[in-house]
Amino acid sequence: MLSKSRVSLLKSLQQKKFRREHGFFLVEGPKSIAEFVGSPYHIEAVYHTSEFSPKVLKLSQKINLCEISVTELEKISSLRTPQEAIAQIGIPEWPSMDHDELKGRFSLVLDGIQDPGNMGTIIRIADWFGIGHIICSEDTVDAYNPKVVQACMGSLARVKVHYTDLNELLGKVKLPVFGALLDGANIYQTDFGNQGVIIMGNEGNGIRPEIQQKVTQAITIPRIGKAESLNVAIATAIFCSEISRKTAK
Amino acid sequence: MLSKSRVSLLKSLQQKKFRREHGFFLVEGPKSIAEFVGSPYHIEAVYHTSEFSPKVLKLSQKINLCEISVTELEKISSLRTPQEAIAQIGIPEWPSMDHDELKGRFSLVLDGIQDPGNMGTIIRIADWFGIGHIICSEDTVDAYNPKVVQACMGSLARVKVHYTDLNELLGKVKLPVFGALLDGANIYQTDFGNQGVIIMGNEGNGIRPEIQQKVTQAITIPRIGKAESLNVAIATAIFCSEISRKTAK
Repeated sequence: MLSKSRVSLLKSLQQKKFRREHGFFLVEGPKSIAEFVGSPYHIEAVYHTSEFSPKVLKLSQKINLCEISVTELEKISSLRTPQEAIAQIGIPEWPSMDHDELKGRFSLVLDGIQDPGNMGTIIRIADWFGIGHIICSEDTVDAYNPKVVQACMGSLARVKVHYTDLNELLGKVKLPVFGALLDGANIYQTDFGNQGVIIMGNEGNGIRPEIQQKVTQAITIPRIGKAESLNVAIATAIFCSEISRKTAK
Repeated sequence: MLSKSRVSLLKSLQQKKFRREHGFFLVEGPKSIAEFVGSPYHIEAVYHTSEFSPKVLKLSQKINLCEISVTELEKISSLRTPQEAIAQIGIPEWPSMDHDELKGRFSLVLDGIQDPGNMGTIIRIADWFGIGHIICSEDTVDAYNPKVVQACMGSLARVKVHYTDLNELLGKVKLPVFGALLDGANIYQTDFGNQGVIIMGNEGNGIRPEIQQKVTQAITIPRIGKAESLNVAIATAIFCSEISRKTAK
């Protein structure tokens, strides 16, 4: 049985303030938890009901398993229909990004993405296309938010999400800086070369003016029809797909 | 003031059964409603609060405007924060699709898409890339569902969504049938020609086996990283983007 203080700690991790204070976040469901096993993340504990089989985690190291009741699971879960197991995982401190870390590859930069569903989908897209780093402005939605963790379906275990002052970072980076903007070059005719960062802006306002000033090449997805805009996760997918196409072999 | 029976009718349109019975659906918010003005849709009425300015609709024809109280708006809205105006719009009966309607263009075929957010995003993607028709299996989520209407941000006014027996339709169509499948040809190396249908499958199960048999070319988005799958709306966007790139000019 869980102590009251443990239940209260785990529940508090649904809020960013307490995630930062305690240094933990929650991952729900056996399938997503399994993605974190063997990853660089530290799994503090897995709370599970009697229905859960630890075998699905394919554990090679010992982890702290703690059986709880369905009622307890419901108390700590953020889901309407909790799924057998919830892991308490340490929020990692990735080494801070600089020019050397970013060179020789493509990375995503998110300037003020707000919607947890978009954020989760973008992490999943990065994982599909082998993009290892997402660098976010400080006001971008927290990647350890339960809705983001849910939406990215375990991809967070492989994609490193950083929060930093974008202005400062981009000021130090000597790489191509591609920005998803209106009236830029046609994405299909753009030579992305073999390295750079791709900036995607906020859902309503796009990329902030001061960050736009750091863009060395504005890029646009040509519109054939009449929709006013594309969702930011959709636009991110098309950028990643184009880069993947052009850099393949 | 709205009669009780009118409130009850409008509220009932949140359910598919009653949308089909009455032949109407709701569009919320001045911006989305404006997209339906001048479209092939019949606007039965716009219910709005005193804050709403009909000017935003840029009306060229007379429509039935009905001022209501904020309390009444809240009663008929499906949103947590209702937005000044709700339109009651007739569900159109598009001419049924056949070979002649489908030839000479690209159309999307959805086999059992369930999530309203995905459906709305797909309609918006189709609108961006100038795809005029989406043909859905009967069990695909209803395009007039309030969450779909909300997610597609007015694009439903331009993209025609059809529901039909896919097996029967695809049996009659003599066009390339592209299917988003695992182990298909590399999408970047595929010649899509200048016409065809693109089938996207259900979120969990993909394209049904009997529909897969109608696919003339299986297509895959190559995976570089490790995500298990891409969200269906993301995959749809990459298909539309590739076709757009290859058929430009």
